[in-house]
Amino acid sequence: MDGIQTVFKFFLNQKTTIGYSFMALLTVGGERIFSMVSFQCPCNKSQNFIYGFVFIVGPALVLFIVGYFLSSRTWKLFTGCCLDPRKLCPKGNSCNCVYVFAQITVGACIPPAMWLTVALLNGTFYECAVSGLENNHVVDLFCKGKTDTCRAELPRVPCGKSSLSPEDNQELLLMLRAQSQILGWLIVCIATVMGLIGTCYKNCRSQVSYLQLKFWRKYIEKEKEQFDCYATEYATKLADRNLKSFFENKDPEAFPFPSHSSWEDIS
Amino acid sequence: MDGIQTVFKFFLNQKTTIGYSFMALLTVGGERIFSMVSFQCPCNKSQNFIYGFVFIVGPALVLFIVGYFLSSRTWKLFTGCCLDPRKLCPKGNSCNCVYVFAQITVGACIPPAMWLTVALLNGTFYECAVSGLENNHVVDLFCKGKTDTCRAELPRVPCGKSSLSPEDNQELLLMLRAQSQILGWLIVCIATVMGLIGTCYKNCRSQVSYLQLKFWRKYIEKEKEQFDCYATEYATKLADRNLKSFFENKDPEAFPFPSHSSWEDIS
Amino acid sequence: MDGIQTVFKFFLNQKTTIGYSFMALLTVGGERIFSMVSFQCPCNKSQNFIYGFVFIVGPALVLFIVGYFLSSRTWKLFTGCCLDPRKLCPKGNSCNCVYVFAQITVGACIPPAMWLTVALLNGTFYECAVSGLENNHVVDLFCKGKTDTCRAELPRVPCGKSSLSPEDNQELLLMLRAQSQILGWLIVCIATVMGLIGTCYKNCRSQVSYLQLKFWRKYIEKEKEQFDCYATEYATKLADRNLKSFFENKDPEAFPFPSHSSWEDIS
Repeated sequence: MDGIQTVFKFFLNQKTTIGYSFMALLTVGGERIFSMVSFQCPCNKSQNFIYGFVFIVGPALVLFIVGYFLSSRTWKLFTGCCLDPRKLCPKGNSCNCVYVFAQITVGACIPPAMWLTVALLNGTFYECAVSGLENNHVVDLFCKGKTDTCRAELPRVPCGKSSLSPEDNQELLLMLRAQSQILGWLIVCIATVMGLIGTCYKNCRSQVSYLQLKFWRKYIEKEKEQFDCYATEYATKLADRNLKSFFENKDPEAFPFPSHSSWEDIS
Repeated sequence: MDGIQTVFKFFLNQKTTIGYSFMALLTVGGERIFSMVSFQCPCNKSQNFIYGFVFIVGPALVLFIVGYFLSSRTWKLFTGCCLDPRKLCPKGNSCNCVYVFAQITVGACIPPAMWLTVALLNGTFYECAVSGLENNHVVDLFCKGKTDTCRAELPRVPCGKSSLSPEDNQELLLMLRAQSQILGWLIVCIATVMGLIGTCYKNCRSQVSYLQLKFWRKYIEKEKEQFDCYATEYATKLADRNLKSFFENKDPEAFPFPSHSSWEDIS
Repeated sequence: MDGIQTVFKFFLNQKTTIGYSFMALLTVGGERIFSMVSFQCPCNKSQNFIYGFVFIVGPALVLFIVGYFLSSRTWKLFTGCCLDPRKLCPKGNSCNCVYVFAQITVGACIPPAMWLTVALLNGTFYECAVSGLENNHVVDLFCKGKTDTCRAELPRVPCGKSSLSPEDNQELLLMLRAQSQILGWLIVCIATVMGLIGTCYKNCRSQVSYLQLKFWRKYIEKEKEQFDCYATEYATKLADRNLKSFFENKDPEAFPFPSHSSWEDIS
């Protein structure tokens, strides 16, 4: 029994890791489903680019916005700021507000970066998008050393229905996929390097030591949990009191309750 | 045992997420069933558009109205407002009433938006609808670079029974599907962006801080639960008393009961 | 029951070994998945090298950075060092700081070294990368004793689509794979030898005896565990106190808490 508890505790401590792994699995699964079920390159000069582009950028945009939605810090920052704009920058300088907003944005960037990586490593969307480009330099680059029909037939390459020889077609496809995967790895590398530099910088500017930081992080987590508990308990009590007084047609009893300004303070 | 409790609590907290996932699954499943079992494009110039349009817009309209039905706020707003129109706007200004109505409408828009997205991402309905359009510009756009029979044969393309070559037919189908999916992604992106802006604006105008808002949301939820409990209990007691007095032919005992006006107030 | 406890204890003591085995399995599995699902050599003179190189070096770089991220010593070193650069070198000399940083770097090198080994022992990535080299000496080395077309056809060898005779093609492939595996074994050997020398040197310079060192290592581990326990306990208590005082609108009770400077000392 003790062993199971240890194992369970271990997994509870790895909550963030599990969360991110789950997100990564979802992204990979979603990409698989989209590229299998839904994605079919139109192989049409005028539509290829916009179609591929929509499948690469659309889900990334949606995930980016969902990232903002799910971050409770977004709402902490924005709640009530129209009526009282001073709340955005409580210390008088606008620096803090920009800093918090940047933090939220960076957090919201993780899921779209995952999507871009997975989509580019797979390569189907990129093949379709790039084969529809009308820029002459790009087309010349692809068709170097090929027959003249290559230029006109390029948009049909992803469907395998071009009038080029099967070898040329296969070669073009492999080239496009290789470019896509190189781009994907570049995004991964740049994102991890930037993540390391950003986290270093953030920790570097911290005024407390590492262990104290660790303690405060634990405290904040516990406070959130306890707040939910207390809020539920007090809400239940308050609802109970109000409804009882309503049904029994009596005046409600007094109830200790925090004032409006103290709510403002803790937020 | 503690672990199971934690897991269970976690899922209880994710009620909204689970609800929306379930709704999304239902929409996808419904769309699959419709497009497999029920939908068969008539491939007829005069009917294609109206048939496809009905399958795209019909369920969306039904879901929109069901959304109104399932929102308890709709009934809170409208109940009794014919006999006493002042109830719609208790504060004298009609602004509040319009605001609540807009909130309900936005909530009711989510399921139809889901349907439109799923239906357009699949593309079957759109193919049928657009291939029946009689607008010359649209038809010219589709048939650019094709033989002259394309114009006449376009409505038969979704059935694969046109007299065009199979390649041209396939190409037209892919083009239509691509347009449909691009439209679908556009709807998703616009909906999420508008959702973010709307929620931001709503939170921004809130007079209380984020944590207080969180507490009140919990309170309202608890009050609803408790109200159901209390109502059941008092209704049982009241029924018991009235029936007992009826069968025993005695006058009913006094029963503490809220007055009509206090019912009006809490609604 | 006692037996299970013994087995469990044994595995708990082998935490490091299990961690490394798990990491090795993950690396091997990841390499298999990449080279099966994702990797397809473009067989194109201008892209072969960069494509193969990206698949060898990209994941190694990502794993290297993740290694820094997961090391708590990185954060112990960097936290707060911008505001107070003296913290990096508490003893006045910069030697200690460099030494700690080197230790972290060595630790972060283990996963990328694993990846390089696995990738080179498999050989697919290396084949593709080297066959695209444009250096004349390298190409001469590969094509010694082959026909003149070998130079031009070398980039197509990994795909098996070169115009060379199948025997020559197979021979070239085997040669490339052999080189890759020799390189892989070299990395393994060098890494283990360097690891042995490094650990010897570190132990050699230690001022305490072996058993004392073993004791201190166990002490440090236990201290970390106990710190987590205590931190959790105190954070819970503190959160409890603060929230209670908030909801009941009372002043919080006094709470014994370590001062800022003592946090600095223990870090």
